[in-house]
Parts: sequence; structure tokens; C-alpha cells
Amino acid sequence: MTTSNSFPGDYNDAFPNSFKTFLEGERVKVPVREIRLTGEEPIQVYDTSGPLNFDVREGIPALRKEWIMEREVQTCERTLAPTEMIPEGLKRETLVSTGNVTQLHYARKGIITPEMEFIALREGFSAEFVRDEVASGKAIIPCNINHPEIEPMIIGRNFKVKINANIGNSAVSSSIEEEVEKLQWSVLWGADTVMDLSTGKNIHETREWILRNSPVPIGTVPMYQALEKVNGVPEDLTWEIFRETLIEQAEQGVDYFTIHAAVLLRYIHLTAKRTTGIVSRGGSIVAKWCLAHHQENFMYTHFEEICEIMKRYDIAFSLGDGLRPGSIADANDEAQFAELRTQGELNKIAWKHDVQVMNEGPGHVPMHLIKENMDKQLEWCGEAPFYTLGPLTTDIAPGYDHITSAIGAAMIGWYGTAMLCYVTPKEHLGLPNRDDVKDGIITYKIAAHAADLAKGHPGAQDWDNALSKARFEFRWEDQFNLALDPVTARAYHDETLPAQGAKVAHFCSMCGPKFCSMKISRDIRRAAEQDEGFKAMSEKFKEKGSEIYHNNKESAAE
Amino acid sequence: MTTSNSFPGDYNDAFPNSFKTFLEGERVKVPVREIRLTGEEPIQVYDTSGPLNFDVREGIPALRKEWIMEREVQTCERTLAPTEMIPEGLKRETLVSTGNVTQLHYARKGIITPEMEFIALREGFSAEFVRDEVASGKAIIPCNINHPEIEPMIIGRNFKVKINANIGNSAVSSSIEEEVEKLQWSVLWGADTVMDLSTGKNIHETREWILRNSPVPIGTVPMYQALEKVNGVPEDLTWEIFRETLIEQAEQGVDYFTIHAAVLLRYIHLTAKRTTGIVSRGGSIVAKWCLAHHQENFMYTHFEEICEIMKRYDIAFSLGDGLRPGSIADANDEAQFAELRTQGELNKIAWKHDVQVMNEGPGHVPMHLIKENMDKQLEWCGEAPFYTLGPLTTDIAPGYDHITSAIGAAMIGWYGTAMLCYVTPKEHLGLPNRDDVKDGIITYKIAAHAADLAKGHPGAQDWDNALSKARFEFRWEDQFNLALDPVTARAYHDETLPAQGAKVAHFCSMCGPKFCSMKISRDIRRAAEQDEGFKAMSEKFKEKGSEIYHNNKESAAE
Repeated sequence: MTTSNSFPGDYNDAFPNSFKTFLEGERVKVPVREIRLTGEEPIQVYDTSGPLNFDVREGIPALRKEWIMEREVQTCERTLAPTEMIPEGLKRETLVSTGNVTQLHYARKGIITPEMEFIALREGFSAEFVRDEVASGKAIIPCNINHPEIEPMIIGRNFKVKINANIGNSAVSSSIEEEVEKLQWSVLWGADTVMDLSTGKNIHETREWILRNSPVPIGTVPMYQALEKVNGVPEDLTWEIFRETLIEQAEQGVDYFTIHAAVLLRYIHLTAKRTTGIVSRGGSIVAKWCLAHHQENFMYTHFEEICEIMKRYDIAFSLGDGLRPGSIADANDEAQFAELRTQGELNKIAWKHDVQVMNEGPGHVPMHLIKENMDKQLEWCGEAPFYTLGPLTTDIAPGYDHITSAIGAAMIGWYGTAMLCYVTPKEHLGLPNRDDVKDGIITYKIAAHAADLAKGHPGAQDWDNALSKARFEFRWEDQFNLALDPVTARAYHDETLPAQGAKVAHFCSMCGPKFCSMKISRDIRRAAEQDEGFKAMSEKFKEKGSEIYHNNKESAAE
Repeated sequence: MTTSNSFPGDYNDAFPNSFKTFLEGERVKVPVREIRLTGEEPIQVYDTSGPLNFDVREGIPALRKEWIMEREVQTCERTLAPTEMIPEGLKRETLVSTGNVTQLHYARKGIITPEMEFIALREGFSAEFVRDEVASGKAIIPCNINHPEIEPMIIGRNFKVKINANIGNSAVSSSIEEEVEKLQWSVLWGADTVMDLSTGKNIHETREWILRNSPVPIGTVPMYQALEKVNGVPEDLTWEIFRETLIEQAEQGVDYFTIHAAVLLRYIHLTAKRTTGIVSRGGSIVAKWCLAHHQENFMYTHFEEICEIMKRYDIAFSLGDGLRPGSIADANDEAQFAELRTQGELNKIAWKHDVQVMNEGPGHVPMHLIKENMDKQLEWCGEAPFYTLGPLTTDIAPGYDHITSAIGAAMIGWYGTAMLCYVTPKEHLGLPNRDDVKDGIITYKIAAHAADLAKGHPGAQDWDNALSKARFEFRWEDQFNLALDPVTARAYHDETLPAQGAKVAHFCSMCGPKFCSMKISRDIRRAAEQDEGFKAMSEKFKEKGSEIYHNNKESAAE
């Protein structure tokens, strides 16, 4: 294990006394965040922050470049030449496969790729287990051969629950610089993947900046850019424009595509009587096209061709749920489940092409209807990873939908969802800024970790135990440093007790020194350990077993 | 129905276009908040805000005074004469019962009290149902005869899930004025009960100010004040001092007491090997006393005497869970469940005395262990209402424990918990200020409402439906006004699109005008309604039923 002792900038500000450390495998070096403690062994946690201190106009190192070059690939001309908004330092040669380079292909052949080895170390499983999960379609490793910068990660229900952060500008708001900053901020706080959902100007350039600086897989909804190309008129979309867009984004290095191929013409009428109709942007665009032409969704009719394109770059499908419910009233309805069945059908076609696939899920679902979503997805979609947006468990709290949805996200994560798409406080109201992105991510890290605990994921509870032990022992600094967000934990404490002395005090502002249960409890533990009479008495009571309640009933009346 | 057209101050600022309206029964007038909409029927929601615009030095009107005076009560001298910190305007005559005045007593006798009638209208059930739930012990109506100011409310799993907000100063922080402001802020945002957990100076006076200004039941942990009386030395506590404290608080009007009577001497050793020992303040004080004296908990040995005191004022028990887990590691352990069994035993004794009772529950519990808590409480505690603190579903997020706990709270509310004790972002770190109180309350209103939806509580979904319909119809003002927190919803929207024109726009900053799924979806609905051909085609597809997937498989390959 090697350790870098100091990193300036955001990382150290965000995580005091944390150090980026590496687990070394045969072919890989896996970053972890090591949190140093006082008089206790350090604890290592999963680290998504990526290489630190690189110029955004140069991009981050291409970790996977060598691995990829050993595969059946060749360089090719970019379909779309870089514009002047892409600096020299971000220009890369473009690759395309001449054979079969998908992780699913290798897994099925019994080959453990360096990506799998990396993930095995990162997650604490054997490389063979990782390979087997990918081979069975239960897990995916999104990693376009044109995105060598990523630190490989896996999405599957037998691994840690992952979270995705959505960023991207719109016609109304935000710039390239802001979006790159949101990316860096996202991975710093723990986003496992990032989706660039830009719909405004400079979509191509924004994406290039993001990809070259992203240590995590990047997802997109290619339909958004295709629609820009036809000036926002869904009726004018064509398969050719969509296909060209897929290739343009594939060459840049997008790792997974949301494709709304399961929104079929015959399902659209099922949404007509809904409270909130179709709320997925992609879904509504497709629906409008289908209705205008009275034709079947071209992503469905051209699905095998899409598979062939995605296979050439090892891009994974995120099969969109264009008919997801947008309100409690519409949850688990016919439209939603009709599309889910078709997603399952399409999974099989993707797998036939050795293309990795996951399925997107809702949306707005009350708690008692959440499990049905997971059960049906497992049954109908052949155990492909499920990737849900929340779900939001009530509609009445715009401004707090990170919370309404974290409840549903934690539950569906426990039930088996592999990745949770975050929701920020701005959901339904506006585009998230940097602070909203952080709020969304921390909230979803909570949901994902709560799900890991409930699933009994190996080692998940170590973090909780370390923090609770620090709390019980009044190691305030350790408690702050072990927090998901040390900065906020410390700031809240210091609001009432800012003095440095309070950081070693055996009490806090909540109860003051006399009332501290932790302090009294420690006294009790000491007493219990020292007092042989107490021990003997306790044993005596214990021997009486469950009878004690009856035996002592009278005493309560005294 | 009568309506007041305008209330200045916080209420109107917090809830634009909301009006306090009253449902009129035979003997009662029940406040509701009516949210007026544009071109839609107004919607009425449960209102805890109480009478508006009263001088805090005079207190709010005594709604229940007449009802109480018709019962077996007489005036008595206060044990503790009011100090000069209690203004003249807050002084009241003190009552004590000469017979049996508990709601449980009346319910068992088949008598529907005005309190029950009030609650029936408030919750939308028959008065007979309310009476029956109280008679069976499944629900409680906390309402001390010395707290006539409250608007009656009920805690039981067949009613709306309630939330409690904790306030109170400590030796380190805050003043009487701040605490009264937190009370008013709490009920404005929706707290159903408030616990005054003060431990610092002026405990008696702070409580008097709070009670005289509170339209919701007030709970306390009398042990905190008893400990102040012995200068914070648990060993010096005596039954006499505790008893005197109960009577002092009873005469002031506290509606429910947290009594840690189920922390038994023989259970204490069970906590010695825990990660976080005893984290309940009350529990740790009792434990220290028991160990110091090698005697059984005096609240257990004097339990029937406590019942007699509480009966005289109709104070409800909130049987404390002094051994609740303070970390994921300690969840559902032997100590916790031993105490829960004893809580169940004590419930029966309380019921024997016609004293209303609920049970407090955890704490820190991972999701997969939450249901066991509810199941055991129902089984062991005779279906008395359960009142839980969260539970927190992970320990790793100090600063965000309103969220870690909202996940657990929503779930246990769905499973049957009747009241959820809020957790603020400051939990584990400091005393909540006014903003933290609001964050905690809004978060818990979300959890409680999500639970109501999941339980299928009659009418709960109307609110969600109204908001979602407003959203789908681009009625922005209605969407804001229907939000749990209209101020925040509007502010988030206006961050990106502040112009008044954007409030009627058929798009928002997230997608911009071209990409709005809601807009496209409305076009689709119109198309669907107009297009007979579309309808016929839809029917044709529908007829094919489940076969369509196979029939069309080929098309996906085109």
C-alpha cells in the first residue's frame, strides 16, 4: 500500500485527516479514502473522487489506456471534428473496436479483465465473483473504450448500492465551467456515475470537457441532443439523426446511454387518463414522434442496430422508463408495467449482442407499492441491474424532494436496486446549483448506505461502528472526520460550542455536562466492570429468565 | 363553516393563499387550513397552528375550559407559587380532580367527550370510533385538565400519523423567549405535540410560558427537573423529590410525562458490552441511581402511585425507552427488548388506573430490523400507541440525521407507529435553533404523510393529487401554495426564473420550453382525445393483450 500524504484543495477541505491511499493488485491500484483516527486503526472507505489537482483544460490521466490498447481496437477519425471550444489539451485519439471488446463478452469467455480486478479489490470480492456477476447479466461495468479516464466501477445488486448525480445545462441556465465544476463536486462527495443531461447550447463541447475530467462513468440521454439537431421539433426526428448522435457521443466516450426503446406506440394511450401523463422528457419526445407519424418508436424498430453501435465501444444500455409515474396517483399503473415488460424483452436482445444493460425505474411511488416494482423488474428483466429515480414517496413537498425520494430510494435499494439516481432539493422547481448537487449526493449516500446495511453488505457496518465508537468515547474530531460530510458536522457543533476545548469535552451543548447520557453510561460501564457484586447480581437476575416479569409484578405496585 | 379572511403575521407569510377555516360540530369548532386554488375547489388540510396573534404574555384562549369545569374537578393551591418571571397575564387557577376525569375513563363508560367530538371532525372519523379506540387503549388523547388551551388531538395507529418536536434549553444555551418562539414556529409548521426538554435554568418558568401559549399537548421528562433539584447528582435523587416534581408539572398542565419506569436494575448489565451503552438521558440517570443504591428503579416500585397522580390531572404516560439503542450495532438487542417487555407490563397497570399510555421506541435501527420493533411492541404492549425517535437507519451522517431518521420514521409509521419524534439536523451535535426546528418538522411531516399514504389513510392522497394536478397544469402558484413549505418551493423556483411571467409559463428552468415533458404530454392528451383513429388503434393493440411482445419481437431487430 502506498500513501500520498497531502493533497491541497477541495479534497482536504472536504475530508479533514483523510488521505487518498491505494490498494495494490497485480495489474491495478485502487484508490480508497483512509480516515485517520486518534488511538484507533484508520478506516478505509470507497473513494470516487478520482485523481486530484489536474488542469481541467488537460483532463485527468487515462488509467485504462494500456488495457484498452491491448484489445481489438483501432483508431478512427472522429465523425464530428472538435470545435474551438475544446482546448488542445482535451483532444484525444478516437477508438473503435474491430472485434468484440465488451466486458460482458470477456466475462462470458471466462476472462478476468483489469477492470474486473480493479472492482474486485474496490468492493472486497473475488475477481471471479465479479466476472461471474457480469457474465450472468446481473451486474454491469459501464466503460466506453473512449473513456479511459474512469476508475472502473460496477452496478449490480450484490455489490455496494451506487448513486448517480444528474448535471447538465438547459436552454435557460448555466455554462460549461459550471457543469465541469458540478462534475468535480459530484465525484468529490461520492457520485458513482454522473449523467450529463444538457439540453441547451454547446451540448457536444460540455460533454467533451466532462468526459475528459471524469473518473466515473458518464451517462447521457442521446435523444436530447438529437432533438436539438431538429430545433426541438419531435416530429422532425429521424432514425438517421438519432443514429448519428449515438455515434458522435460514442466516439467522445459516453459510458451508458439512456434509450427509451420500450415506449411503444400502443402504450401511449394508457397515459391519457393519468394525473400527470408522461413526465419523462425522453418518453414524451418519443410519444409525440410516434403519434405524429403513427409509427412504432424507431429506437424499438432499430434496436438491434443500436446494439451493434453500442457494442463497438462497449457502451451499456440504461433502458429508459419513459412512462414512469410522475405522481403518487399514477404509480404502478398499466402504462408503467407495460413498458417494464418490454424493457425485459429488450434486455435479452442486448445480451444476445454481448451488450451490457440495466433498466431504469420510477419515479413517484408510495411506500407500500415500492416492492412490487423491484419484484416485477427481477422477474421480467432477467435480474439485470435496476436503476431507479428515488422513488418519491409523496408529492406534497417540492423543495424537499431529495428527502421524499431518499425514503423510497433506501427502501428499493434494500429490496435490490443496484443504483439510485439522486434527486436534489430543486427537483420540479429548477436546475440544481453546486450546493443542491451536494445536498442530493449526501442524501443519496445515506440512502445507499442504509440499503447496504439492511442487505448485510460485507463490511458496510464497520463505518457506522467506527463513528459510534468515536461518539461514545467523546472523540469529537474523529466523529466529525468520520461523518459523510465532516464540514457540516463540525460547523453544526461549533455553532453552539466553538471553543477548541469543546472538541475534547465529555459533553456537548445538547445536554450540558451534568446530563450527558454518554458520560453517565461510561461511568456505568466502569462500575459494571469493577463491581463483582453487580456482576453476580446480574447473573442471578439473568438466571430467572422470562419469569422475572411475573415474579416482580407486585413490586411495581409498591 | 365560518372563515376568517385574513391573518397577519407568520401564518400568512408561511402559507400564502391559505385561510384558517373551521369545521363546526355540535359542541366544537375545529380549525383547518384551507388552501385556495385557481379554478379548482380549495383543499383543506390538518392545522396545528393554533389561535393566531395573541400576546405571549397573556397566552392563548382556553378552548376546553368549560368542558373541563363540568367534570369532577376543584381548584387548588399551586404547590409552587409562580415566580416573578411568570407575568400576571399567564397566571391561571389550578385544578385537580375529585373523581375520575381521564379520557380513558369516559371512553370506557361509553361517554363521548367534546375532545372526542373535536378529534372525530378533525380526523374524519365518527366520534364513536374515536371513543372506541381510546377505550381499547389503542389511542390516547393527551389533555391535562390544567392545559385547557389545547386543540384536542389523538395518537393512535388508526389515525393520521403524528409528529413531535423537541424544544428546550440546556445549561449551555438559549432563553425563555427563544423557546416560546420555537414552540410557535413548531406548531406553525405542523408539530402535533411538543416536548419541552429543558435542563438548564428557569425550567419551571420556561414550561409555564410554553404551556400557556401552546395549542398542542406538551410532554416533558420530569426526571430532568428532578435532577436539577439535586444539583445534577443522580445518586441524590429520591422518590419524594421525583413525586414533588410530577405534581409541580401536573399543576402547570403538562399533558404527557416520559417516565423511564421500565429501566430495571437487572437490565443495566445488559448494556455494559454495547457499542454506545445507554444513550437516553433519562435512562442513564436512572441506571446510575440504581447502581449507586443497588436498588430497583423507584419509578418502577412506585408505579401505581405515579398512576394515581397522573390520573388526577388526566396526564398520559409516555413510557420511556431508556435502554434504546444509540447505534446500529446495538439495535434490537437484549437490553432493548427486555425493557420493551416491561413497558408492556406497565401499560396494563396504567390501564387498570384508567390512565392513558403510549410506549416510546428507538432510536438507531437498520432498515431490516425496524419491523421487528413494531411487531414486538404490538404483541407485548397490548396495542398501545408506539412513539418512536426516528429510527435512524445509519450512524454515518451527523449533520443529516433528520434524513437518516426520516427513512426509518416513514417505514415504522407505515408499519403502525402512531407518533414520530422528530430529529433535527443538529442531532448529536448541538441544540436546534429555529431553522433546525423547521427542517426537522418539515422532514417529519414528509415521513408521517408518506406513512399515511402507505397505510391508505382515508383522504391522505387528496393532497398529493391536488399538487400533482396543479403541477401538470402549470399552475405554479397553486403548486407552491400546496407545498408543505410554500416559501421554500417558491424561493427555489425563483432562483432561476424570478420573473412573474415564469409563474404562468408552461415550462421551467430544468428543461426550458422545448423539452418540457409536461407540455408535450398535454399535447399528447389533446391529440389522444381528438384522434379517433388513435383511439381505435389503441383498442386494437389492447385486444392483442400479452401476445404483443412475441408478435412484435421481430420488429425490434429491424
